[in-house]
Amino acid sequence: MADTTETLEERLSRIHRALGDERLEAVDDVLADLEPAEVALLLESLPPAARIKLWERVPGEVDGEVLLHVHDEVRSTLLDDMDHAEIVAATAGFDTTDLAEIFEDLPQQVAEDMLRSMDELQRNRLQETLSFEEDSAGRLMRTDTIAVRADVSLETVKRFLRWKETVPDNTHALMVVDRNGFFMGVLPLARLVSHDPEMAVADLMDSDVDSIQVTMHSRDVATLFQTHDLASAPVVDADGLLLGRIVIDDIVDVIRENSEQALMNMAGLDEEEDLFAPVMPSAKRRAVWLGINLATAFLAAWVIGRFEDALDKIVALAVLMPIVASMGGIAGSQTLTLAIRGLALGQISRTNSSWLLRKEIGIAALNGVLWSLVVAVLAVLWFGSVAIGVIIAAALVINMLAAGIAGIVIPLMLKRSGIDPALSGSVILTTVTDVVGFMAFLGLATLFLL
Amino acid sequence: MADTTETLEERLSRIHRALGDERLEAVDDVLADLEPAEVALLLESLPPAARIKLWERVPGEVDGEVLLHVHDEVRSTLLDDMDHAEIVAATAGFDTTDLAEIFEDLPQQVAEDMLRSMDELQRNRLQETLSFEEDSAGRLMRTDTIAVRADVSLETVKRFLRWKETVPDNTHALMVVDRNGFFMGVLPLARLVSHDPEMAVADLMDSDVDSIQVTMHSRDVATLFQTHDLASAPVVDADGLLLGRIVIDDIVDVIRENSEQALMNMAGLDEEEDLFAPVMPSAKRRAVWLGINLATAFLAAWVIGRFEDALDKIVALAVLMPIVASMGGIAGSQTLTLAIRGLALGQISRTNSSWLLRKEIGIAALNGVLWSLVVAVLAVLWFGSVAIGVIIAAALVINMLAAGIAGIVIPLMLKRSGIDPALSGSVILTTVTDVVGFMAFLGLATLFLL
Repeated sequence: MADTTETLEERLSRIHRALGDERLEAVDDVLADLEPAEVALLLESLPPAARIKLWERVPGEVDGEVLLHVHDEVRSTLLDDMDHAEIVAATAGFDTTDLAEIFEDLPQQVAEDMLRSMDELQRNRLQETLSFEEDSAGRLMRTDTIAVRADVSLETVKRFLRWKETVPDNTHALMVVDRNGFFMGVLPLARLVSHDPEMAVADLMDSDVDSIQVTMHSRDVATLFQTHDLASAPVVDADGLLLGRIVIDDIVDVIRENSEQALMNMAGLDEEEDLFAPVMPSAKRRAVWLGINLATAFLAAWVIGRFEDALDKIVALAVLMPIVASMGGIAGSQTLTLAIRGLALGQISRTNSSWLLRKEIGIAALNGVLWSLVVAVLAVLWFGSVAIGVIIAAALVINMLAAGIAGIVIPLMLKRSGIDPALSGSVILTTVTDVVGFMAFLGLATLFLL
Repeated sequence: MADTTETLEERLSRIHRALGDERLEAVDDVLADLEPAEVALLLESLPPAARIKLWERVPGEVDGEVLLHVHDEVRSTLLDDMDHAEIVAATAGFDTTDLAEIFEDLPQQVAEDMLRSMDELQRNRLQETLSFEEDSAGRLMRTDTIAVRADVSLETVKRFLRWKETVPDNTHALMVVDRNGFFMGVLPLARLVSHDPEMAVADLMDSDVDSIQVTMHSRDVATLFQTHDLASAPVVDADGLLLGRIVIDDIVDVIRENSEQALMNMAGLDEEEDLFAPVMPSAKRRAVWLGINLATAFLAAWVIGRFEDALDKIVALAVLMPIVASMGGIAGSQTLTLAIRGLALGQISRTNSSWLLRKEIGIAALNGVLWSLVVAVLAVLWFGSVAIGVIIAAALVINMLAAGIAGIVIPLMLKRSGIDPALSGSVILTTVTDVVGFMAFLGLATLFLL
């Protein structure tokens, strides 16, 4: 039995030490107990040099499974370390779904040789799978479905299964089809074993089950699995012909990736990003994001520059102005995060967005008034000027209202334009709260204090 | 068959219109086609008044299931609308796990009556379940496990299942125990149906499976399910006595909640937060976060205040200083987000954190130099002072290095102190990048320009 009490962190320390001391048998000992997905996690947790050392100790027969479990970016670092023959051997046992998953990452020469070595049927299947959109049900489905006819008896089904011998362990239900292969329903194995063998499949099957269109987006497939507590589901084409099945194991990955995506995108990162990517490519990728933000920072500076006069005369303005911008940014990012999660879950539509906007304006008004009073008192105590207190309070209320509105309106507009709100939302929002904040505070000061 | 092509958003619009026009039969039509989890999503997507209207149309027999699927905060708004008898009726069919999940949210009177109406056995079971930690395997496990003895034949097992009649549809495997109830292994249903009925359970069972300690943290359980592609797993006590099983449906919720948690916590929000919570309580909760941030903003303002002299003499400093702070904040939040995801996945430990730190310093240095050159050129063009260009470039490099270091060190230190890095990390990081940014820029200017 695998030791389930050792955490990844402990295992990581153990293997890190073993790799450092070149104790390769100790490395092999750790590897021997692990599932491919655990090896994948370990590989992802190691810096490049250690990662390659470990990868070379991973037994060839699990190489393929490990490649399927790592993030895209890590996968290409591993593939780079393999020669032609190793890649072919690792992917030899892959079904079409798995092959399609990594096919586009393969070195071109390997991919071509692989296609050439396939028989007609395999090649057609792979090309068909690759023809489905990247995030569609067609890419997730497995073709190892066991289908039975509706008009046979349970006894016949059992004889068939005994004759087949190898029913995949993760089969929870048999698919039921008519004589032309069209989907009719599902027969859970639990029912097959607990009912009279003389009964017909048709009498016992569930025909009220959700079948998945092969073109359905993986995100919608995941929602369906979650809302219907499914363990597996049939995939059909537009005519209802059974093409395969999707199992929950693959859906769990979709759910995790979708949730991680919002978190990473909000910081301008890709969810496939390798934590231990080398410095140069990482720096390049992040440079783009920093450049965009620099442009917006210059925009804010330009706004400040419009008020040089006021800044020149009253130094307190320069001291206090970041407070107005920062409070707006924080309030706005709270609203934005809520909206991004709501949009990701499909919970925000045109019908309820106006209610949401009113709610966020209400919250902004309440917190704006509360905190502007605090800020005003502190500003008066600090600089001994009531006028500055009043002006910063007014500017803070204005900026927090702007933040609340922008936090709802920006993601909705981005979504409607087909742009990922998590990726662009925070840059645009900060621009709004910086510009509005500086303009309101310095503008009011120019009007009333000069 | 349910219409799987209608998205939540479309359904939401439909029900929103029907509720608005008081067309209650149309509302009932929508509800009739939905799974409880879909009703839960719809309820979560509605503002308070519409939510209560819809809730009152939800048929009593699915009330309980719906309550189990909504987030905590939404659940209490729904419970508030139910009277004593309705709550008792809704939870009548709950197993111990489900009851424990909502028990602490129930009005005290209802909870007491419920305990009183239970028999001794039920009450003990519930109290046992409640005695497990909130996020432990014990709270996730179901007790509807079907266990068979290792020394009987498959034929006997099948006879037993036929006699039992109701095997839960989500049973994929039978648990195998010895005569004292100690866990021995697992028999997938797929093998039961595809093998010779004369074989003994012991010859066919998997004894090399992972059993889960009842005290294991739900996060570790979820990792185990993902890395081992499990559909269900046995739960045992410290002595190996079989207590129940955990099924993947419940794990999917854990995975989703854990992933959402980091996103929400980074903005100071709770992942159980109701998108449509009323203004007053939402404003109160967010006020705390804003107050903490205000304190850090005043700290930054105080730092700026130390350099009033410089600001008074050179107005360009006030114009340019937010650029230094903002670029540091952006660069730092990228590093922080990567670190938070890495920590959540268990991929960062003492052994690799120094490599990670060196990598982030390298990235910060490269991007710092690149963007400080751009900023310097623009600053010189704008203000016609080479000195200001050199100073802002130096300050930017310093702040981006500080951001890279803080982005790794802060979450690691928080994690080690048992504080959630997602929740507190961004506040502390922004404080560091603001303080270092203003201090470096204004400090260098004071030294060299005055």
